[in-house]
Amino acid sequence: MKFTDGRRRVVIEDVTPQIDAGSHPVRRIVGDEVQVSAAIYADGHDLLAARILYHHRTERRWRSAPLKADGNDVWRGSFPVDRIGGWSFTVQGWIDRFETWAHDLKKRLDAQTTGRGLNISAAESDPRDIALVFRSGAMLVHEASLRARGADARRLLDAASLLDRLAQDKTTPYEYPFSPEIHQLMATYADLRRATEFEPELPVMADRERACFSAWYEMFPRSASAIPGQHGTFADVEKQLPQIARMGFDVLYLPPIHPIGRAFRKGPNNSAVAGPDAVGSPWAIGDREAIPCGIGNVKQNDDCGGHKSIHPQLGTFADFDRLVQSAKTHGMEIALDIAFQCSPDHPWLAEHPNWFQIRPDGSIQYAENPPKKYQDIYPLNFESADWRRLWGELYSVFEFWIERGVRVFRVDNPHTKALPFWEWCLDKLNTKYPDVIFLAEAFTRPHVMYGLAKRGFTQSYTYFTWRNTKAELTSYLEEITRPPVSEFFRPNFWPNTPDILHKTLQEGGRPAFMLRLVLAATLSSNYGIYGPAYELTENRPAKPAPGKTESEEYLNSEKYEIRQRDRNAPDSLVPLITLLNGIRRANPALHANESLRFHAIDNPNLLCYSKSTANFGNTILIAVNLDPFHEQTGWTDLDLDAIGVLAQRDFAVEDLLNGKNYMWRDRRNYVALQPGIQPAHIFRIVR
Amino acid sequence: MKFTDGRRRVVIEDVTPQIDAGSHPVRRIVGDEVQVSAAIYADGHDLLAARILYHHRTERRWRSAPLKADGNDVWRGSFPVDRIGGWSFTVQGWIDRFETWAHDLKKRLDAQTTGRGLNISAAESDPRDIALVFRSGAMLVHEASLRARGADARRLLDAASLLDRLAQDKTTPYEYPFSPEIHQLMATYADLRRATEFEPELPVMADRERACFSAWYEMFPRSASAIPGQHGTFADVEKQLPQIARMGFDVLYLPPIHPIGRAFRKGPNNSAVAGPDAVGSPWAIGDREAIPCGIGNVKQNDDCGGHKSIHPQLGTFADFDRLVQSAKTHGMEIALDIAFQCSPDHPWLAEHPNWFQIRPDGSIQYAENPPKKYQDIYPLNFESADWRRLWGELYSVFEFWIERGVRVFRVDNPHTKALPFWEWCLDKLNTKYPDVIFLAEAFTRPHVMYGLAKRGFTQSYTYFTWRNTKAELTSYLEEITRPPVSEFFRPNFWPNTPDILHKTLQEGGRPAFMLRLVLAATLSSNYGIYGPAYELTENRPAKPAPGKTESEEYLNSEKYEIRQRDRNAPDSLVPLITLLNGIRRANPALHANESLRFHAIDNPNLLCYSKSTANFGNTILIAVNLDPFHEQTGWTDLDLDAIGVLAQRDFAVEDLLNGKNYMWRDRRNYVALQPGIQPAHIFRIVR
Repeated sequence: MKFTDGRRRVVIEDVTPQIDAGSHPVRRIVGDEVQVSAAIYADGHDLLAARILYHHRTERRWRSAPLKADGNDVWRGSFPVDRIGGWSFTVQGWIDRFETWAHDLKKRLDAQTTGRGLNISAAESDPRDIALVFRSGAMLVHEASLRARGADARRLLDAASLLDRLAQDKTTPYEYPFSPEIHQLMATYADLRRATEFEPELPVMADRERACFSAWYEMFPRSASAIPGQHGTFADVEKQLPQIARMGFDVLYLPPIHPIGRAFRKGPNNSAVAGPDAVGSPWAIGDREAIPCGIGNVKQNDDCGGHKSIHPQLGTFADFDRLVQSAKTHGMEIALDIAFQCSPDHPWLAEHPNWFQIRPDGSIQYAENPPKKYQDIYPLNFESADWRRLWGELYSVFEFWIERGVRVFRVDNPHTKALPFWEWCLDKLNTKYPDVIFLAEAFTRPHVMYGLAKRGFTQSYTYFTWRNTKAELTSYLEEITRPPVSEFFRPNFWPNTPDILHKTLQEGGRPAFMLRLVLAATLSSNYGIYGPAYELTENRPAKPAPGKTESEEYLNSEKYEIRQRDRNAPDSLVPLITLLNGIRRANPALHANESLRFHAIDNPNLLCYSKSTANFGNTILIAVNLDPFHEQTGWTDLDLDAIGVLAQRDFAVEDLLNGKNYMWRDRRNYVALQPGIQPAHIFRIVR
Repeated sequence: MKFTDGRRRVVIEDVTPQIDAGSHPVRRIVGDEVQVSAAIYADGHDLLAARILYHHRTERRWRSAPLKADGNDVWRGSFPVDRIGGWSFTVQGWIDRFETWAHDLKKRLDAQTTGRGLNISAAESDPRDIALVFRSGAMLVHEASLRARGADARRLLDAASLLDRLAQDKTTPYEYPFSPEIHQLMATYADLRRATEFEPELPVMADRERACFSAWYEMFPRSASAIPGQHGTFADVEKQLPQIARMGFDVLYLPPIHPIGRAFRKGPNNSAVAGPDAVGSPWAIGDREAIPCGIGNVKQNDDCGGHKSIHPQLGTFADFDRLVQSAKTHGMEIALDIAFQCSPDHPWLAEHPNWFQIRPDGSIQYAENPPKKYQDIYPLNFESADWRRLWGELYSVFEFWIERGVRVFRVDNPHTKALPFWEWCLDKLNTKYPDVIFLAEAFTRPHVMYGLAKRGFTQSYTYFTWRNTKAELTSYLEEITRPPVSEFFRPNFWPNTPDILHKTLQEGGRPAFMLRLVLAATLSSNYGIYGPAYELTENRPAKPAPGKTESEEYLNSEKYEIRQRDRNAPDSLVPLITLLNGIRRANPALHANESLRFHAIDNPNLLCYSKSTANFGNTILIAVNLDPFHEQTGWTDLDLDAIGVLAQRDFAVEDLLNGKNYMWRDRRNYVALQPGIQPAHIFRIVR
């Protein structure tokens, strides 16, 4: 009941951070201080006290952290999330009876000495009043002593006795009787019986650092063989690990590794007819005949050949386990692609036809976007009457691979699976395996994208690929790197993917690949590329679909065929990538996005921005030429506060891309950038 | 449980209007359409439908109103609050299976005719697919027929049969089979089993119109006698009603009418010593010896001489009742001042000493602001152990006067009484007596002021008195007339009160009184003046308190003595007041604040703003000279969209203050205003 004790006079409102009235957690990194604010007030003029109550979800006892008044009834404080996983916090406020009393007493004592000057009448400076106030105080301190133990209790009891004695002492003027230590003790043993607690408790998810700082490399294992024409294996990928690690990537992300359906298999360039050698799309998941159930090292389950199986041509579970281990020794993690959809040969179609939509003729509904049919793909039906078992099975897919050592997942098209499912599934997984990272491939409308992030995805793909102009980049980045979005949504910027070769890259060629790489790697602390197509600046698009004039698909897309490439070919971007990843690692300013600020520069083709750690320990100032064709020049108008530089002063900058040093001065400085040669300045401000 | 049915795929977020996650109602006027918006979305590409569910608190059944998609997953609609009192609403959304089906079918039918041109393969335009789709549709329509009754059910059954027949008909091409009427029926009998409802239900309070459009006149009844030196009575007030009504006021507000304490009674100019003739402050409430309990027309209660009694010199309950009735016949209402505090002679001190703070010597604590003592006033202790009875008694004070016909209260210093008390008390009163209006005299910090408004006060005093410059007025008005504040906070602007004679009036004299009157009456749809001090432009302040250089108190304040005045003295502002109140009544644009827009004008002493009704049926454009000493001139730069005027066009304006007509043109127009003579233009745009 709201009014069980009407004497709780303190009101608490506007507690931050919170998302949708506490329905979803804000996301932080383990070790962060969570900054908390709240409006806390009561009637009248009593002094208040307040604190944060917080605990890790697994802890029974609440911990507390102080809140301090910051003017206009707003209180601020912070608490550390020193363990990975889910946390809760709330705010507690109460009337600080003792400080109110002390404040009142001090005013009386002041008046006692200055009273005559202020024209206070005799009655008003009556020392008997002060004696009464001393007695009230003695009662407060005595009560606190009953809440304390041991030495503290004795000290408070002594303080109460002192006040009582003073109250009886008729010698005036009185003096203020208490030391700061007594005030500290009174705060420690505050009377919380009528404290107000904000409801509901607000959730915070503390992720590991890689959740917000990671460099991803996507590659198709089947293209990894060094022998021309041969299907690549996990062992072939293993051989490339040293080079990928040298480039500076943290996460090696593999498209689905499961058996690929045979029925309606797609041929090269997404052709409806596949030749006998066609390898098919890894996203057409499932071939129940590829993996004999319960044989060999595959456990007995009703998913043989499905999401818990490995495509036989890639290798065995032992090969996979070795790859996972080997990646670790190179400081990388393997990310799996979880695509909850089935080929016609997936075991779920046979075992659980009720997990799919059934057509009136009893057949299972394949994917359609009328009039187009995608008969190689069967979507799951989240309105299945058997939804509980479906949810359980999908959850178990993640758990299966987690138990095999996978800690990073890229989730395919999460926006075509029910949001309540993700909320349930990711909460369960985040609770049990808080170190697991989920990247949502949600190329969809903003509300849906953000809705998925709120429901537990650690990172998300973004619209970065389609944000190319200065205005587009500025407004998008300002949206996603600031509250409320930044509280729950962590961008991961991809200049390309196997599905998306943007026009900018198609037309801008190598200089465009360079500038988009710099943008992705520095605007967003999480970024990734699909290689070796990126290193090799592959930019030939597929033939446009009938009726269209453009395509964002790759020509001879690796989605449908094996593409063996040499990422060390002449003109490869490997050196630039290696340099950029090195710069990212060495400069903590680039490990997060919240400090991102754009700076004015008087050329629409130049983008200028900075990132900084707290107190400007590390500050990176970047200028990028967005035009892949022409040199662009311009004058900055720097926001000096954002980079911790004083007005009218020289400051040294080191260009981390070419090692050169410059002296800059004040707000206005000259920039000239040549596409393909020097696409950007990445300045570290030398302090 | 959150996931009792995981098949509810629709997500609803960001429902507006809401205050603090539904903790407090937004306030509207009966007859308003409440504009609702929400983000509503689901996974995938199914079409959604959504509606508002709403009801008056006293209604069992929910009513519904449509929501329409307005782009980017935001849905909008409205519902009428056609009864006074509390309402609840929520938003419901669901997958519109039938419209999704129809959309899919139409795409197939289009492809059937245009397929060859689009290079669709034979398999993809297979008419057997369409037959299957027809059969799916027949099932949907048949299910809907089972939810319908009578003729509707028969029509749906027929439609389902038609589809079934068509599905068996092998003659192609098919055509789209349904009329808009069938679509309408399918919407009416939608399948809501898996609909999502937003939680919590959100409250709306519908007040009567006077809650947001009112002109208040404050006067001291004891000064109302026409006979010099004689204590005024309710009968004397009654005699003034015709004139006050003629001035155009709606609410006649009387300071507390209860017996006044005798102990420590204050004399003229707040002097500590009161002579035998001193009438005391009406806010020092209570004299248990003034009213013999249970005698005469006073009912037996433990409040004789307190908040439910009338000061004997003002008259009897019969006199009071007649005043209330008489005001009604003049189109006005009597507002009482409820000040929850006690004089030393209040019956509560004797009957309920535990409702007050007790000092260590057993005495009851009077009001203090050390070193100042206010021994004529005893504040209530909202932390009393007997708080439930205290709350009940305070509630009963309102109810006592409500039952006597009072429907408007001005509540004195509500910010010194516990906020949970107000939340409880006003919710109870607003529920039982939804036509009662409460004006909060909360001159305090913004959070507390807004916190009181959220907890049920209908209107509130504001900082208007202390907002005098263009910048101050603009930023303050923009804060309080726009969401979120305008959702729950209704300003009532007072250029003066018996407590506050601002420096602007003290120094600016009659011209300042004129301009502040125009500002109050037009910036805020609720305003009031304390008269006849205002009409007579009384501007002599009291002597500053010791140590101060200024005072905002009136000299010879009416709070402590009888002040008989003639509001029709030469130079009285009665004509201007009458004119302004007439303009207010005649122009609905001035009946609310949400349309207020400020317009640029190139002189810091000129303030230009407009208000308009929906669709610009009535538009008022105002320019005020904020300088009481000098003529000010300037050129406007009007926001034409805000006043419904086309660029590059002439438009006629009529100055409602002097009846003159002008032709204005486009954005830039010339204004010259002379203090004291023409303090402002109040233009009606002639259409």
